[in-house]
Amino acid sequence: MLLSRKADYALVAVRYLSGLPKGAVSSIDRIAQNASIPREFLAKILKELSGKNILESIRGAKGGYRLVLKPRNITYQHVIEAVDGPIYLNLCTEFGRSYCNKIDECEIHQFWLEQEAIFKRELSKQNFGRYAARAN
Amino acid sequence: MLLSRKADYALVAVRYLSGLPKGAVSSIDRIAQNASIPREFLAKILKELSGKNILESIRGAKGGYRLVLKPRNITYQHVIEAVDGPIYLNLCTEFGRSYCNKIDECEIHQFWLEQEAIFKRELSKQNFGRYAARAN
Repeated sequence: MLLSRKADYALVAVRYLSGLPKGAVSSIDRIAQNASIPREFLAKILKELSGKNILESIRGAKGGYRLVLKPRNITYQHVIEAVDGPIYLNLCTEFGRSYCNKIDECEIHQFWLEQEAIFKRELSKQNFGRYAARAN
Repeated sequence: MLLSRKADYALVAVRYLSGLPKGAVSSIDRIAQNASIPREFLAKILKELSGKNILESIRGAKGGYRLVLKPRNITYQHVIEAVDGPIYLNLCTEFGRSYCNKIDECEIHQFWLEQEAIFKRELSKQNFGRYAARAN
Protein backbone atom coordinates (compact mmCIF):
# COMPACT_ATOMS: atom_id res chain seq x y z
CA MET A 1 0.00 0.00 0.00
CA LEU A 2 2.94 2.25 -0.67
CA LEU A 3 2.96 5.67 -2.20
CA SER A 4 5.01 5.42 -5.40
CA ARG A 5 8.59 6.62 -5.36
CA LYS A 6 7.61 8.97 -8.16
CA ALA A 7 4.91 10.64 -6.06
CA ASP A 8 7.23 10.85 -3.06
CA TYR A 9 9.86 12.61 -5.18
CA ALA A 10 7.19 14.91 -6.63
CA LEU A 11 6.25 16.05 -3.09
CA VAL A 12 9.90 16.70 -2.25
CA ALA A 13 10.51 18.61 -5.50
CA VAL A 14 7.46 20.83 -4.94
CA ARG A 15 8.56 21.42 -1.35
CA TYR A 16 11.95 22.61 -2.62
CA LEU A 17 10.39 24.96 -5.19
CA SER A 18 8.00 26.29 -2.53
CA GLY A 19 10.96 27.53 -0.51
CA LEU A 20 12.30 29.71 -3.32
CA PRO A 21 11.36 33.38 -3.73
CA LYS A 22 8.11 33.94 -5.59
CA GLY A 23 8.53 33.42 -9.34
CA ALA A 24 12.07 32.05 -9.04
CA VAL A 25 13.09 29.56 -11.72
CA SER A 26 15.22 26.60 -10.76
CA SER A 27 17.16 24.36 -13.14
CA ILE A 28 16.58 20.63 -13.13
CA ASP A 29 20.15 20.16 -11.92
CA ARG A 30 19.61 22.43 -8.96
CA ILE A 31 16.33 20.78 -7.96
CA ALA A 32 17.91 17.34 -8.33
CA GLN A 33 20.81 18.33 -6.13
CA ASN A 34 18.81 20.13 -3.44
CA ALA A 35 15.99 17.63 -3.26
CA SER A 36 18.27 14.57 -3.65
CA ILE A 37 16.38 13.12 -6.59
CA PRO A 38 18.04 11.26 -9.50
CA ARG A 39 18.17 13.75 -12.38
CA GLU A 40 16.53 11.73 -15.16
CA PHE A 41 13.69 10.56 -12.99
CA LEU A 42 13.19 14.11 -11.76
CA ALA A 43 13.08 15.45 -15.34
CA LYS A 44 10.18 13.12 -16.06
CA ILE A 45 8.35 14.07 -12.85
CA LEU A 46 8.74 17.82 -13.46
CA LYS A 47 7.37 17.41 -16.95
CA GLU A 48 4.29 15.66 -15.57
CA LEU A 49 3.79 18.32 -12.90
CA SER A 50 3.97 21.03 -15.53
CA GLY A 51 1.40 19.19 -17.63
CA LYS A 52 -0.95 19.45 -14.64
CA ASN A 53 -0.54 23.17 -14.04
CA ILE A 54 1.47 22.87 -10.86
CA LEU A 55 4.75 23.93 -12.47
CA GLU A 56 5.64 25.73 -15.62
CA SER A 57 8.68 25.15 -17.76
CA ILE A 58 10.85 28.17 -18.66
CA ARG A 59 13.09 27.83 -21.68
CA GLY A 60 16.51 29.36 -22.28
CA ALA A 61 19.96 29.46 -20.74
CA LYS A 62 18.53 30.31 -17.33
CA GLY A 63 15.53 28.09 -17.82
CA GLY A 64 14.07 25.43 -15.62
CA TYR A 65 10.85 25.16 -13.65
CA ARG A 66 8.84 27.33 -11.33
CA LEU A 67 5.57 27.03 -9.48
CA VAL A 68 2.43 28.22 -11.21
CA LEU A 69 0.39 28.36 -8.02
CA LYS A 70 1.19 29.76 -4.59
CA PRO A 71 2.57 27.05 -2.31
CA ARG A 72 -0.44 27.34 -0.01
CA ASN A 73 -2.69 26.54 -2.94
CA ILE A 74 -0.94 23.29 -3.80
CA THR A 75 -1.99 20.27 -1.77
CA TYR A 76 -0.33 16.90 -1.30
CA GLN A 77 -3.32 15.31 -3.04
CA HIS A 78 -2.87 17.64 -6.00
CA VAL A 79 0.80 16.65 -6.42
CA ILE A 80 0.32 12.92 -5.87
CA GLU A 81 -2.60 12.67 -8.28
CA ALA A 82 -0.74 14.77 -10.88
CA VAL A 83 1.90 12.05 -11.23
CA ASP A 84 0.03 8.90 -10.22
CA GLY A 85 -3.58 9.59 -11.15
CA PRO A 86 -6.54 9.32 -8.77
CA ILE A 87 -5.88 7.71 -5.40
CA TYR A 88 -7.61 4.44 -4.58
CA LEU A 89 -6.98 2.17 -1.62
CA ASN A 90 -8.51 -0.98 -3.03
CA LEU A 91 -9.33 -2.47 -6.41
CA CYS A 92 -13.04 -2.48 -5.56
CA THR A 93 -13.08 1.29 -5.04
CA GLU A 94 -11.10 1.81 -8.25
CA PHE A 95 -12.98 -0.51 -10.57
CA GLY A 96 -16.35 -0.93 -8.85
CA ARG A 97 -18.63 -3.62 -10.21
CA SER A 98 -16.21 -4.64 -12.93
CA TYR A 99 -13.86 -5.84 -10.14
CA CYS A 100 -16.57 -7.33 -7.92
CA ASN A 101 -20.30 -7.65 -8.52
CA LYS A 102 -21.10 -7.76 -4.81
CA ILE A 103 -19.88 -4.31 -3.79
CA ASP A 104 -23.35 -2.95 -3.12
CA GLU A 105 -23.86 -5.33 -0.24
CA CYS A 106 -20.24 -5.54 0.93
CA GLU A 107 -19.17 -4.05 4.24
CA ILE A 108 -15.51 -4.48 3.39
CA HIS A 109 -16.07 -2.30 0.33
CA GLN A 110 -17.80 0.28 2.54
CA PHE A 111 -14.81 0.24 4.86
CA TRP A 112 -12.44 1.01 1.98
CA LEU A 113 -14.66 3.79 0.67
CA GLU A 114 -14.60 5.40 4.11
CA GLN A 115 -10.85 5.01 4.54
CA GLU A 116 -10.26 6.46 1.12
CA ALA A 117 -12.38 9.50 1.94
CA ILE A 118 -10.55 10.03 5.25
CA PHE A 119 -7.15 9.65 3.62
CA LYS A 120 -7.92 11.99 0.73
CA ARG A 121 -9.30 14.57 3.13
CA GLU A 122 -5.99 14.53 5.01
CA LEU A 123 -4.01 14.80 1.76
CA SER A 124 -6.13 17.73 0.61
CA LYS A 125 -5.61 19.54 3.96
CA GLN A 126 -1.83 19.46 3.61
CA ASN A 127 -0.43 22.23 1.46
CA PHE A 128 3.03 23.63 0.82
CA GLY A 129 2.44 27.01 2.47
CA ARG A 130 4.58 26.06 5.46
CA TYR A 131 7.58 25.59 3.20
CA ALA A 132 7.12 28.90 1.40
CA ALA A 133 9.72 31.64 1.40
CA ARG A 134 8.44 34.61 3.44
CA ALA A 135 7.89 36.73 0.35
CA ASN A 136 5.41 34.20 -1.08
CA MET B 1 -1.48 2.97 -3.01
CA LEU B 2 -3.63 -0.06 -3.52
CA LEU B 3 -4.18 -2.94 -1.19
CA SER B 4 -2.92 -6.04 -2.96
CA ARG B 5 -5.42 -8.33 -4.62
CA LYS B 6 -4.05 -11.08 -2.41
CA ALA B 7 -4.88 -9.19 0.78
CA ASP B 8 -8.31 -8.26 -0.55
CA TYR B 9 -9.04 -11.93 -1.25
CA ALA B 10 -7.71 -12.88 2.18
CA LEU B 11 -10.23 -10.54 3.83
CA VAL B 12 -13.07 -12.01 1.78
CA ALA B 13 -12.00 -15.59 2.55
CA VAL B 14 -11.85 -14.90 6.28
CA ARG B 15 -15.23 -13.20 6.13
CA TYR B 16 -16.69 -16.32 4.53
CA LEU B 17 -15.18 -18.62 7.16
CA SER B 18 -16.42 -16.30 9.90
CA GLY B 19 -19.98 -16.91 8.82
CA LEU B 20 -19.75 -20.69 9.28
CA PRO B 21 -20.71 -22.45 12.52
CA LYS B 22 -17.93 -22.50 15.11
CA GLY B 23 -15.27 -25.09 14.26
CA ALA B 24 -16.71 -25.83 10.81
CA VAL B 25 -14.19 -26.93 8.20
CA SER B 26 -14.59 -25.74 4.63
CA SER B 27 -12.89 -27.17 1.58
CA ILE B 28 -10.82 -24.94 -0.67
CA ASP B 29 -13.33 -25.53 -3.47
CA ARG B 30 -16.20 -24.38 -1.31
CA ILE B 31 -14.39 -21.25 -0.13
CA ALA B 32 -13.34 -20.46 -3.70
CA GLN B 33 -16.89 -20.79 -4.90
CA ASN B 34 -18.57 -18.87 -2.09
CA ALA B 35 -16.02 -16.10 -1.87
CA SER B 36 -15.53 -15.87 -5.68
CA ILE B 37 -11.76 -16.30 -5.54
CA PRO B 38 -9.73 -18.18 -8.18
CA ARG B 39 -8.94 -21.57 -6.64
CA GLU B 40 -5.16 -21.71 -7.08
CA PHE B 41 -4.62 -18.21 -5.80
CA LEU B 42 -6.91 -18.96 -2.86
CA ALA B 43 -4.96 -22.13 -2.01
CA LYS B 44 -1.81 -20.05 -1.68
CA ILE B 45 -3.55 -17.41 0.45
CA LEU B 46 -5.10 -20.00 2.80
CA LYS B 47 -1.70 -21.61 3.30
CA GLU B 48 -0.24 -18.27 4.28
CA LEU B 49 -3.10 -17.51 6.66
CA SER B 50 -2.64 -20.87 8.32
CA GLY B 51 1.07 -20.17 8.70
CA LYS B 52 0.10 -17.07 10.69
CA ASN B 53 -2.30 -18.78 13.07
CA ILE B 54 -5.45 -17.32 11.62
CA LEU B 55 -6.57 -20.56 10.00
CA GLU B 56 -5.68 -24.18 10.48
CA SER B 57 -5.51 -26.83 7.82
CA ILE B 58 -7.46 -30.05 8.39
CA ARG B 59 -6.36 -33.11 6.42
CA GLY B 60 -8.47 -35.94 5.09
CA ALA B 61 -11.43 -36.55 2.82
CA LYS B 62 -13.48 -33.90 4.63
CA GLY B 63 -10.48 -31.65 5.10
CA GLY B 64 -10.03 -28.01 4.36
CA TYR B 65 -9.56 -24.96 6.53
CA ARG B 66 -11.15 -23.50 9.60
CA LEU B 67 -10.58 -20.46 11.77
CA VAL B 68 -8.25 -20.81 14.73
CA LEU B 69 -9.48 -17.65 16.42
CA LYS B 70 -12.98 -16.34 17.04
CA PRO B 71 -14.05 -13.95 14.26
CA ARG B 72 -14.20 -11.06 16.70
CA ASN B 73 -10.55 -11.64 17.58
CA ILE B 74 -9.34 -11.39 13.99
CA THR B 75 -8.78 -7.89 12.68
CA TYR B 76 -8.40 -6.58 9.15
CA GLN B 77 -4.85 -5.57 10.03
CA HIS B 78 -4.09 -9.10 11.22
CA VAL B 79 -5.28 -10.61 7.92
CA ILE B 80 -3.65 -8.06 5.62
CA GLU B 81 -0.29 -8.26 7.38
CA ALA B 82 -0.45 -12.06 7.41
CA VAL B 83 -0.32 -12.15 3.63
CA ASP B 84 1.47 -8.91 2.75
CA GLY B 85 3.71 -8.21 5.72
CA PRO B 86 3.74 -4.99 7.74
CA ILE B 87 1.77 -2.07 6.32
CA TYR B 88 3.66 1.04 5.26
CA LEU B 89 2.31 4.01 3.36
CA ASN B 90 5.63 5.38 2.13
CA LEU B 91 9.14 4.15 1.47
CA CYS B 92 10.53 6.53 4.11
CA THR B 93 8.41 4.96 6.85
CA GLU B 94 9.35 1.48 5.65
CA PHE B 95 13.08 1.91 5.20
CA GLY B 96 13.84 4.95 7.36
CA ARG B 97 17.31 6.48 6.97
CA SER B 98 18.38 3.92 4.42
CA TYR B 99 15.77 5.41 2.07
CA CYS B 100 16.36 9.05 3.02
CA ASN B 101 18.90 10.55 5.37
CA LYS B 102 16.78 13.63 6.07
CA ILE B 103 13.78 11.98 7.69
CA ASP B 104 14.51 13.39 11.15
CA GLU B 105 13.87 16.92 9.95
CA CYS B 106 11.24 16.13 7.33
CA GLU B 107 7.63 17.22 7.81
CA ILE B 108 6.49 15.10 4.88
CA HIS B 109 7.91 12.05 6.67
CA GLN B 110 6.05 13.09 9.84
CA PHE B 111 2.85 13.33 7.83
CA TRP B 112 3.26 9.77 6.56
CA LEU B 113 4.03 8.45 10.02
CA GLU B 114 0.81 10.02 11.30
CA GLN B 115 -1.30 8.76 8.41
CA GLU B 116 0.11 5.28 8.85
CA ALA B 117 -0.78 5.30 12.54
CA ILE B 118 -4.33 6.49 11.80
CA PHE B 119 -4.81 3.92 9.07
CA LYS B 120 -3.48 1.02 11.11
CA ARG B 121 -5.66 2.04 14.02
CA GLU B 122 -8.71 1.82 11.77
CA LEU B 123 -7.60 -1.56 10.41
CA SER B 124 -7.07 -2.89 13.91
CA LYS B 125 -10.54 -1.71 15.01
CA GLN B 126 -12.26 -3.71 12.28
CA ASN B 127 -12.81 -7.34 13.14
CA PHE B 128 -14.86 -10.18 11.70
CA GLY B 129 -17.30 -10.48 14.59
CA ARG B 130 -20.10 -8.87 12.56
CA TYR B 131 -19.87 -11.68 10.01
CA ALA B 132 -19.92 -14.45 12.58
CA ALA B 133 -22.59 -17.11 12.69
CA ARG B 134 -24.72 -16.62 15.82
CA ALA B 135 -23.25 -19.65 17.51
CA ASN B 136 -19.74 -18.14 17.40
